[in-house]
Amino acid sequence: MQRMSISNLLGGWFHPFRRRGHLKVGFLGLGNMGEPMAANLIAAGHQVTVWNRTAAKAEPLKERGVKVATEIKDAVQNQDVVCTMVADDHALRTILEGGLLEALPKGAVHVSHSTVSVAMAEELKREHGKRGQAFISAPVFGRPEAAQAKKLFVVVSGDPAVIEKVKPVLDAIGQGVTVIGNDPVQANVAKISGNFLIAAAMEAMGEAVALVGRYGVDPVQYMEFLTSTLFAAPVYKNYGMKIAKQEYVPVGFKAPLGLKDAKLMIAAGEGKYVPLPLASLIHDQMITAIAHFGEDVDWSVIAKVSAEHAGLK
Amino acid sequence: MQRMSISNLLGGWFHPFRRRGHLKVGFLGLGNMGEPMAANLIAAGHQVTVWNRTAAKAEPLKERGVKVATEIKDAVQNQDVVCTMVADDHALRTILEGGLLEALPKGAVHVSHSTVSVAMAEELKREHGKRGQAFISAPVFGRPEAAQAKKLFVVVSGDPAVIEKVKPVLDAIGQGVTVIGNDPVQANVAKISGNFLIAAAMEAMGEAVALVGRYGVDPVQYMEFLTSTLFAAPVYKNYGMKIAKQEYVPVGFKAPLGLKDAKLMIAAGEGKYVPLPLASLIHDQMITAIAHFGEDVDWSVIAKVSAEHAGLK
Amino acid sequence: MQRMSISNLLGGWFHPFRRRGHLKVGFLGLGNMGEPMAANLIAAGHQVTVWNRTAAKAEPLKERGVKVATEIKDAVQNQDVVCTMVADDHALRTILEGGLLEALPKGAVHVSHSTVSVAMAEELKREHGKRGQAFISAPVFGRPEAAQAKKLFVVVSGDPAVIEKVKPVLDAIGQGVTVIGNDPVQANVAKISGNFLIAAAMEAMGEAVALVGRYGVDPVQYMEFLTSTLFAAPVYKNYGMKIAKQEYVPVGFKAPLGLKDAKLMIAAGEGKYVPLPLASLIHDQMITAIAHFGEDVDWSVIAKVSAEHAGLK
Amino acid sequence: MQRMSISNLLGGWFHPFRRRGHLKVGFLGLGNMGEPMAANLIAAGHQVTVWNRTAAKAEPLKERGVKVATEIKDAVQNQDVVCTMVADDHALRTILEGGLLEALPKGAVHVSHSTVSVAMAEELKREHGKRGQAFISAPVFGRPEAAQAKKLFVVVSGDPAVIEKVKPVLDAIGQGVTVIGNDPVQANVAKISGNFLIAAAMEAMGEAVALVGRYGVDPVQYMEFLTSTLFAAPVYKNYGMKIAKQEYVPVGFKAPLGLKDAKLMIAAGEGKYVPLPLASLIHDQMITAIAHFGEDVDWSVIAKVSAEHAGLK
Repeated sequence: MQRMSISNLLGGWFHPFRRRGHLKVGFLGLGNMGEPMAANLIAAGHQVTVWNRTAAKAEPLKERGVKVATEIKDAVQNQDVVCTMVADDHALRTILEGGLLEALPKGAVHVSHSTVSVAMAEELKREHGKRGQAFISAPVFGRPEAAQAKKLFVVVSGDPAVIEKVKPVLDAIGQGVTVIGNDPVQANVAKISGNFLIAAAMEAMGEAVALVGRYGVDPVQYMEFLTSTLFAAPVYKNYGMKIAKQEYVPVGFKAPLGLKDAKLMIAAGEGKYVPLPLASLIHDQMITAIAHFGEDVDWSVIAKVSAEHAGLK
Repeated sequence: MQRMSISNLLGGWFHPFRRRGHLKVGFLGLGNMGEPMAANLIAAGHQVTVWNRTAAKAEPLKERGVKVATEIKDAVQNQDVVCTMVADDHALRTILEGGLLEALPKGAVHVSHSTVSVAMAEELKREHGKRGQAFISAPVFGRPEAAQAKKLFVVVSGDPAVIEKVKPVLDAIGQGVTVIGNDPVQANVAKISGNFLIAAAMEAMGEAVALVGRYGVDPVQYMEFLTSTLFAAPVYKNYGMKIAKQEYVPVGFKAPLGLKDAKLMIAAGEGKYVPLPLASLIHDQMITAIAHFGEDVDWSVIAKVSAEHAGLK
Repeated sequence: MQRMSISNLLGGWFHPFRRRGHLKVGFLGLGNMGEPMAANLIAAGHQVTVWNRTAAKAEPLKERGVKVATEIKDAVQNQDVVCTMVADDHALRTILEGGLLEALPKGAVHVSHSTVSVAMAEELKREHGKRGQAFISAPVFGRPEAAQAKKLFVVVSGDPAVIEKVKPVLDAIGQGVTVIGNDPVQANVAKISGNFLIAAAMEAMGEAVALVGRYGVDPVQYMEFLTSTLFAAPVYKNYGMKIAKQEYVPVGFKAPLGLKDAKLMIAAGEGKYVPLPLASLIHDQMITAIAHFGEDVDWSVIAKVSAEHAGLK
Repeated sequence: MQRMSISNLLGGWFHPFRRRGHLKVGFLGLGNMGEPMAANLIAAGHQVTVWNRTAAKAEPLKERGVKVATEIKDAVQNQDVVCTMVADDHALRTILEGGLLEALPKGAVHVSHSTVSVAMAEELKREHGKRGQAFISAPVFGRPEAAQAKKLFVVVSGDPAVIEKVKPVLDAIGQGVTVIGNDPVQANVAKISGNFLIAAAMEAMGEAVALVGRYGVDPVQYMEFLTSTLFAAPVYKNYGMKIAKQEYVPVGFKAPLGLKDAKLMIAAGEGKYVPLPLASLIHDQMITAIAHFGEDVDWSVIAKVSAEHAGLK
């Protein structure tokens, strides 16, 4: 962090958004999560260079003073930290092999925000380790609105000294950072299993609503009761009402990504021979949902499988 | 409600705890839920006669001025309302056939608080209907501590006029009464599916904790993170910590009762041909739990099945 | 067996179908299984009195020299053996309480052919035991055509001496009798689990056919290959072709009876805390099948759930 | 097929085992299946060159006149046909990239006998297609003893002309060849789903035996009854007795390979959005089995999970 940029030399009084701890950050992946996350890094005073597979997505950020790279390597070299936020293992591997591994400076840190497999995280550890690059996992919980509002929850694991170094980046994107272990893989497992818990709650609500609905109970009233008492938690309030009202658009998180996450959970279990029958059930119901209702629906559509089986309108 | 007892004639100024709406109540079933519920009825100024299969359980209530009946009929005849709170269909049928059906006055109300089957609720409707007796279902959510603290949540369904009549009784036992429909069966289904949602949350947490534990994440830290963010709800806080710490005693709700509830859920689904695969999974895991860890454990022991399969210590 | 009928006095030479071991048999329940079973008892030379809930079903047997009772007790008293073959626990209990328990002579044998629950079998043991009546379970495998052709497989359990006594009856209805234990309950469990194995094979074939069908493999050719090699067994040949061709009528065994059997299996598991996840899966798929395709279809319709989910025409 | 070896010139009368249709065959992979398959090719008169990752496995074949290549390319170039028989996708890809793709002559045929994923089969189609090489899938059913006895069942799919060309090779390794379609992927799906059917039968038998065992029925007698009547098929006879006797060694097919096959089935379903809940159940039970009983057991050990849960000794 011995950067000697002018902004650092001049210090905080000159530029009201610059403070100690500001970093040079490359941000790769400007989807509906990555774009607001990058915007929050800029707002926090970091010096950000972005890259996206389709460059047009970067335009809105240009106005905020961000540099836009057209090549991955241009967003990676000379950075203190490079954050990646993409859809899956495949997209992340494309970035890795497309310049990230080669161009990331020795000693710089790759902060992986994506929800990827345990195997992918192991690969990242190995490949960055070989090259003297640091690597931590820092997946996030929250939907795009939460990303915009800087309300994400960040779960992070890896070398404590490295985490300390990138703390200003992590602080900039969410409302709280939880360190969950020394091994980067651990934050990935925590994220994967967190998404599993959400899907499990949706499947449970789907079955419960289907049943009470068949007995003539009003699903909305039923969910209002539960989410104001025993289940007064964001996940239940948020998804419970969608499920009670059978509103599966607009799409916050697409059903095929929900299926991907179920597969990540099951694969994580396979890696340690841990049977996860509820994860398997979610996997199967999500497939049924996509087969019947298509790919362009919110993953809460898993609950519609139960509604259809129950013959609810 | 044409009672002419002295306390009624003298009105509220004479007895500070008496108000309009006080009722003559028979309370049958003094288990770890029923006993504090009956105590709260007394505290609220109702005139309570209790009965329990094993009479000794009624002793503590005697000091509070309650009448103790040794025969079911003595607790039932001449009442405005008779509340029942027992373990299962079998116990309730024993009470029904042991005097309740015969002795309950025409026009009086049976308030069934027990978690019983849809079939049992249908039977109650039929049998009370034949005799000109009123019947509503008013199952409760909450553990014994909540019953003592008058913090139960009451879900009620049945004839609105009858519910209005017994409202003072329902208000006396919990922190809130939610009317869920006109058919007594509906509150039973709401209760059954509510317990299902709790069991589903426990199974999900069991699998998640087993997985992250195998990857070296500290389960307690993991659950603390989740229950202070996405899953900040009583059910997750309460059971999440038991599961993270693998503490399945003391017993709040015995595992075989959890199995009974899974069976009630599945049977309710059968009645309308609604498939409930997660309920089936809970059923099977609960059986595995009881087979391995015995009957005298809290139903959260369902999570231990995943821990054992994962080889966690 | 101290019968003094003329046919007995005259002995075998007079009546070519009479041999030693002929018994006086009451046969209750003339459904599509019971009717041909009773006919085979007559053909074997036994002296048969039948009873059926709807008397018209007995007409065809009258021509074969059978006595038709209009009251249960008339088909039961004075018999050596009384066979029952009805749809479920409820039908059997109706017969028990409708005269069988009361009228069956001390020392006579109740042979229960029905597929009933373990709990029902325990009840039969207890009730017959109290009255000095003998009781064995002798459920049968095979569809109505097999019953007609005397090709049923009989599984029997109970007191060996009693089984020996009724052997001529058991021999008359099938192609083989297998003694499976000393406790009547055991043959019921063997039957229940046998039906479970058939349903499991159907569910497996349903999923396999759905998958290969989606990859453009001809299901009929696929099943022909399998059932002429690894799976060259009656159950696979019989049901495999129905499933490959998606022909769920005519109905050999109705879907709701298949659901009933899944419930018997699960209940038998509950009785000993044995988890049976595949039985639960069958239960749930059968419910889905009935919800979507109605009650008047063969139980092999369970395979159609997979076909529908796969979007096969 | 313009081979000019002496044996070909001299024709059939000189060498009793040579006939028209003999081919030059490369055989890669000499595990407990590949080795006897290669031996049968030699016995049938084909001119065989073998390669194996660990060369020692090829020694016994040397005595039979086979050529042993130390490099993949030496076993591939100049062949009419190259057969591969390895454990999984990974092993097959290693061979592909290790010389097979590069050295296989234009117009020559790759016959893939391995049980690999649909994705792998698609990759083979694509890669061989690019190079003008032919490719068919010809997986086999049967255990090592069957391979030795030339009793395998071969399922084949691909271009009919190509299948016709390699027919003498396919005929040499089994007791029957079934053509299942024009697309190589189809035979893979047929094989994957065939193995699924076997595993499903084992899981079903495991649950049934666990249940009847708990009710005191002798599992061996029970399986003998079933496999001589309704389930008189090789799969049930073979595995049923292992399961009844709880004999999971010697190992015919290792449990982790069974898990691999369950994963292939599930992945094949994912590829077309076909939910396969029984495949998921098998997956989870196989993981539980491996977690508890280790990797060096026969895959029929899946049945031991039920036995353990039931508390059978």
